[in-house]
This record gives sequence, structure tokens and C-alpha cells, in this order.
Amino acid sequence: MVSGKAMNESADSAMLRIVFLNPQSLIFMPRMNAFYAQSGGVTAVINATAAGVIETARKHTSKIAKVYAGRNGIIGALTEDMIDTSKESASTIAALKFTPGGAFGSARYKLKGIEENRAEYERLIEVFKAHNIGYFFYNGGNDSMDTALKVSLISKKMGFPVTCIGVPKTVDNDLPVTDNCPGFGSVAKYVAVSTQEAALDVLSMAKTSTKVFILEVMGRHAGWIAAAGGLAGKNPGDAPHIILFPEVPFRKAAFLKRVKECVRDYDYCVVVVSEGARYANGKFLAEAGTRDAFGHAQLGGVAPVVAGMVRDEFGFKYHYAIADYLQRSARHIASATDVKQAYAVGVAAVKMALAGDNAVMPVIKRVSDKPYRWKIEKAPLARIANKEKMLPKRFISSDGFGITEAARRYLQPLIHGEDYPPYINGLPKTVALKNVSVRKLLDTKFVV
Amino acid sequence: MVSGKAMNESADSAMLRIVFLNPQSLIFMPRMNAFYAQSGGVTAVINATAAGVIETARKHTSKIAKVYAGRNGIIGALTEDMIDTSKESASTIAALKFTPGGAFGSARYKLKGIEENRAEYERLIEVFKAHNIGYFFYNGGNDSMDTALKVSLISKKMGFPVTCIGVPKTVDNDLPVTDNCPGFGSVAKYVAVSTQEAALDVLSMAKTSTKVFILEVMGRHAGWIAAAGGLAGKNPGDAPHIILFPEVPFRKAAFLKRVKECVRDYDYCVVVVSEGARYANGKFLAEAGTRDAFGHAQLGGVAPVVAGMVRDEFGFKYHYAIADYLQRSARHIASATDVKQAYAVGVAAVKMALAGDNAVMPVIKRVSDKPYRWKIEKAPLARIANKEKMLPKRFISSDGFGITEAARRYLQPLIHGEDYPPYINGLPKTVALKNVSVRKLLDTKFVV
Repeated sequence: MVSGKAMNESADSAMLRIVFLNPQSLIFMPRMNAFYAQSGGVTAVINATAAGVIETARKHTSKIAKVYAGRNGIIGALTEDMIDTSKESASTIAALKFTPGGAFGSARYKLKGIEENRAEYERLIEVFKAHNIGYFFYNGGNDSMDTALKVSLISKKMGFPVTCIGVPKTVDNDLPVTDNCPGFGSVAKYVAVSTQEAALDVLSMAKTSTKVFILEVMGRHAGWIAAAGGLAGKNPGDAPHIILFPEVPFRKAAFLKRVKECVRDYDYCVVVVSEGARYANGKFLAEAGTRDAFGHAQLGGVAPVVAGMVRDEFGFKYHYAIADYLQRSARHIASATDVKQAYAVGVAAVKMALAGDNAVMPVIKRVSDKPYRWKIEKAPLARIANKEKMLPKRFISSDGFGITEAARRYLQPLIHGEDYPPYINGLPKTVALKNVSVRKLLDTKFVV
Repeated sequence: MVSGKAMNESADSAMLRIVFLNPQSLIFMPRMNAFYAQSGGVTAVINATAAGVIETARKHTSKIAKVYAGRNGIIGALTEDMIDTSKESASTIAALKFTPGGAFGSARYKLKGIEENRAEYERLIEVFKAHNIGYFFYNGGNDSMDTALKVSLISKKMGFPVTCIGVPKTVDNDLPVTDNCPGFGSVAKYVAVSTQEAALDVLSMAKTSTKVFILEVMGRHAGWIAAAGGLAGKNPGDAPHIILFPEVPFRKAAFLKRVKECVRDYDYCVVVVSEGARYANGKFLAEAGTRDAFGHAQLGGVAPVVAGMVRDEFGFKYHYAIADYLQRSARHIASATDVKQAYAVGVAAVKMALAGDNAVMPVIKRVSDKPYRWKIEKAPLARIANKEKMLPKRFISSDGFGITEAARRYLQPLIHGEDYPPYINGLPKTVALKNVSVRKLLDTKFVV
């Protein structure tokens, strides 16, 4: 009898569906490939999650032969355009931990409901089957968790059951169940640090120059990122003086009154405004009018709208910054806590799959605030898919313009610690993968 | 006979004009106070220069009694609103090295020509005389050097000669004679790092999302900051693909053609645009129509203008970031070279004053590119005042959209090295001074 381990070591092709004896469970388990895809907006640490997935899979080659990655996310599976991560060296994969962006390409591409577009799901299973893919790790936000859940269900129905594990990622921090989302801590740190720094700049010039400074940050529906700006100040008079949350209907008169008070009392006023700030009727302060692939309104440019109000009412000199992609790609100022957690969910996702879990997502469970302790647990995708976690009311101060102590207790540990990348010639060192294609096995083409 | 040193040690008031024996020159020299003021837009490292001035002055108390700082720059002198820096501890002054913004307040306030407003100069001398101020260290850009020079001249005429030393500071890097300006290296590093990071983000999403990303950076008349963005990429296809310099008249058709080519060849296009980008007729792409205290047009918002052109022509999905104050206050990613030089010009300014120099500015002289070596020399203010150093033609690639190897050789050493601030609870530690006022001695008020 040949042991599973020996068979594994002798196997040189992952294309073959090798069956070996699992010494632990004493049942026959197939050695299959895994498919990993990044979805939606990338973060400063999503590649750290990829490293967690790949490095852990490489430690379990008796069960997972190779990790294939989707070129441009799920589109890579649909078009059979996959990347063979086994062609990358260990040091390259390790370097993903300090490389921002999505190393394999990500996509804003949402699979429709099964009833609407059954063909997409069938194609996915066809590709998975052809490439002996038994594990699907989908690294994204709410929409991606929905897709992972659906793939899990339909693959079973189609007689090729795929273990689907959602891996959390979103700067918006709006996934339910998990205490926080990998990617958020680093944006939060960027926004808090930038607010603190810019405030010192504005304060020193306020006498003769800019009195009102506005920083526009991301957060389509939830004000988590804007709230993080609140960490920059703690005492009365500290910046930011005003935070505009999507959760608090914008009241122009109250806002302008507060701006006036700040300039009167502190000489200057720093505003952090979420791109999702909106009026009571739900209308965004700055709706561009276009919609993305998920049907969400594409926003941008709320800062000049708010600045215009200040100018028209008071004539104060103002400046505004729009952090845009800088905030979510700022690996140079990533939170060490975030990097650790992003890696940990990748590791946990593979371990869960290997332990036989399916249609689950690793979640971060906070054990204590001070000292901050956390662990990874698992939650069913059904509890997470398509749900948004808004900033709770108890995190927003009674005037609607600031954060509470409860918010600080929650947010502070998430920006804790620095995890500097290495530098070469004054710039962060990053890694570019070879991204070697997996040979196509299907004759059929699929157009997305 | 009482030695100079002994007299110095027994003197407890800087208000008295103590005359002591200088053992080196064997002539009587007065022990006087110094006045230090920050001028114009602050930087991530202007406080490092302040630390250099104050720490060096404290080592020479036999000659400089106290360093007074202008509250809100030169306005503090005109209104007799000065800060006694001797009230700050050594550790507080040292902490200025990692605190961005202007610790004493800066001002956009330009003294007019002597003929136009003699009263302002006379007031300045009146205040200096009342407070026994024999040294004036003016930390700013071109305009400030002009003021320092004028004060030097008029103080002599008025029979109260003040030693005036200009201390260079400007993120715009546009002072002549000096190889580079303190403050610039850190902005350059911020812009290069941010461009590199955001480019990785955009590239990974380009297939289904944003294809064109535009980063707006500072640089009113000179494209030094925009050029620094060019350090982010080196090989063909690397971002940034297009840099729009103030020095190169904007040609819309050529710009759009290049955008199209980039999207075709590389899937995406990253543009770094200077706020000072302008048409051949001199009109800024985005002139706000307002002017600052120096009579300069106040700019902002060129990124959306450029983005609009791309949208209208191609319909590509775009995003833009406006770095604004974030770039010049980003002490968290300051260039170690810049921090060192900012401190060094502060030290040198005091040493020059003590050596008997007047109406000069410490300049940075580059000794070699590789390895990068530099030293501090001095240059007369008359050679610097009111002059701007534009980006030389040989730094701009022949197509007008990029930087040359010569530019890289110049820029690269300036962003070299990281000088991280200490952190507390995930945020950079900064220091807030007590900023104790110097007791007013004049009955007269002066309104600015």
C-alpha cells in the first residue's frame, strides 16, 4: 500500500484527479486544485490575504495540488484565464505581504442570480471541473460572499461539489458578523494620520490663509472610514471638527453653523466628509449620475460641493483634498494589525476548507479592547452575503458631527502598529508576479 | 576683568543689552536676541529647520540670548506678538523634528516695497529694537528672501543693524542657487510613493473598472513636484504614463492621443498633473479666479478638468485624487534626506549669523549624485530674492509627458531614506508647543 504522503510526493501533475488515503479520516479524499480570486476594489493588504492562502495551501500539498488565481478576478474563471501561482517562488509570494493592489487583477463583476444567468454558473463549474478545482476561495465583500454561496450550492446540484470559502476584504468595513474587515484598518490609519497631519498644516496658516479644510474619504454607504478620521483628535478644539457621515442626514444650516463656531473658537475648521454623505431624502451631496457594474451609484467630488457652501456663506478661504485611491493603496502606512489580520484570514480560509467546512467565511472575533485581542472564527456565508453593517448610532456623537468613546474603543486597535514595507531608492519595494497562464483545456469560449 | 563667558552666565535677562568681550575677535559684541519666523505654506519639515535654529542658538548663549518666534510669522513681529522659545524644553524642541506644520504659525503676508509701505519696515525695526533683536532668521521662499534682504538694508539705514539670514523652505523647490529646497524632498517622496501605490491599484482593476487615474499635485509655476511623480516608474508601460508640467504648454489633442495609446497598450493610464498646468496662452487649466496675498492666482481642481476631457473623448471610467495639503504635511513619509537638510539649514543659518554674515541664505550644494553627497554653502539674498527656478528643459522628455534620466539623477537622492516619526496608539506623535508670549514693551499698536 502506498501512503497518501508518498503518492503526493510522486504526483507531478495536478491535472490528474489523484485519490489517496487520508490518514486522519481513513476515507479516500481527492487531491484537487484551488481557485483564488480577488473581487471588487482592492486594498493595501488584499495581497497579504493572497499570500496567506497560497502559503498555507503550499503546506498542504497532499490535499491542495496547486492554487490557480483568476486573472482579473472571477472573470479569469469564466474565460478560463487562470494564473498558475505554483510558478512563483516562495519569496515572491512572501513579498505580496507588502505589495498593494491586486496582484492577479481584481474585477467589479457580479454574477447575476442563478435564474437570470444560469449559464455563468454552469460555465464556472465547467472550468472548475476541467481544471480539477475543488476549492474556491473568493476574496471580496458582500457581493462576493453572495457569489461564493451560490457557487457552493449550484456546484453540488451539478454533481461537482466545490468547497467555497469566502475571504473577507473591504475597505468599507461593512461586512456583518466579522468584527472588522481586512483592508479597513489600513485605510483608517491613512485617513487618521492624514487628517492629523493636514490639520497641523491648516492650523499654522489659519491666521492669514486657509480656514476651512475638507478631506473627502471613501465609504459609499457606511461611515466607517470617515469615522476613522475622528481618531486624529480627542480634545475639544482638536481636528477634525466635523465629520459628515452617510448615516447622518446632511443638514446644511447645522453644518454651516458648526463651521462658523469652529473658525470663531479655534481659528480653523477641518471637515472629514464621506463620499456617501447625503440629504435626508437619500440624495447624495455629489452624485455623479453614473452607476458601476453592481448597480451602485458612482460617487466623487463631495468635497468641492461642501467647500462651495462654506465659500458662499462665509467667504472663508478653503482647501480640499480628495484621497480617492491613495487611501486604499497606501501600503506605506498600513496598520500592522490589519496586515496581520489580512494574512490570518487567508490562512484560516484554507484551513477551514481542509477541515471540511463549506460556504463559510473566516471572521475576526474581538476578544478584548484593551489589550486588544482577537481570534478567527467561522461564519456561514448565508449570514454575510449581501448584508451591510452600518456604523452603529452609538458610535456617532449626539450632534451627529463626531465620534463617541465607544467608536474610539472600537477603531483605535484597528490602526495600531506600523508595518513598513522595505524600500529601494526611496520607494517601497513591491513585487510583480510572473502570472503564468494555466493551459486552457476547454474548446468553448465564454464572453463576459 | 570679567570674562565674556562669566558675564553671560550671570546675565539673567535678555532684555538688557549686555556687552561682553568676545575672546575670538577681541572686540566688544552685544549679546542680543534672535527672531525666527516661518513664512508661506508650511512643509513636513519646516519645524525641523526651527529645531536646527533654536538648538544651535542654545549652544551659543554667549551671543544669542533668546530666540523669539513670530506668532503667525512676520505678523508676530509687526504686532509685537512674539513667542519666547526659551520656555520650551530641549525635548520639546527636539520633537519639532517630527512634527509637521508650522509650530509657531506661518503667514502668507508679504511686506510691500519700502517706497510703498515704509511704515511696516519701520515698525519691524521698532519692535526689534525694543526687544533687543539683533538677528532675524526668516524661513521661507522667494518672497521671504526679498523681505529679509530689505530688512537687512533698512535696519542699517535706521541705525539699528539687524543680521538677516534667509532660511530656505519651499515644497515648490523653486529657489535659485540652492541645489534643492528643504520641504521638497518629502513632498517628492509622498508624490512618488502615492503614484506608485495608486498605479498598482488602478492596474489591478483596469479590466472592468477605472482605466484612467489622475493625481493632482502642487507646483504653482514650476513642475518639480509633478516631476517627482515620474520616479514611480522607470520602464516603458510603468506609471505614471503622463505628467503634465506647467513648463510644457498643454496640448489637448496630444494629451488625449497619449491617453488612448496607454489604455490600448497597457490597459490603463496614470496621469500626474501639476496644479499649474496651463495652455500655451498662459491660462491655467483650472484657474479658480481668486488671488492670494502675494497676488498669485489661487488654483485648485485641475484634475476634474483633465478627467472631464478623457470622459468626453473616450468615455473611459476615471478616478482622480487631489493630494492638496496631504502632500506637504505628510511627515509620516518624509524623506530622510530632506529632514537632514531641513535641520542643517537651520543650524547653518545661526552659524552664519554668528560668523558675521548678513543678508545671506544657506544653500545646499550637491557634491555628487552617486553616491549622493551634499554640503551647505552660503549665497547672498540678492541672488535669490524674487527669483524662480523652473524645471530645466533637459529634465523633461522630448514628448513633454515624462522625465529624463537627468531628472532621475537629480530627484532620486532627494527622496532617499525614511525618517519615521514615533507613534502612539497608531498615530504619529507630534508636539504642541506652549508658545508663551513675550511681554509687550511698546505702547503702540500696529494693524496688519
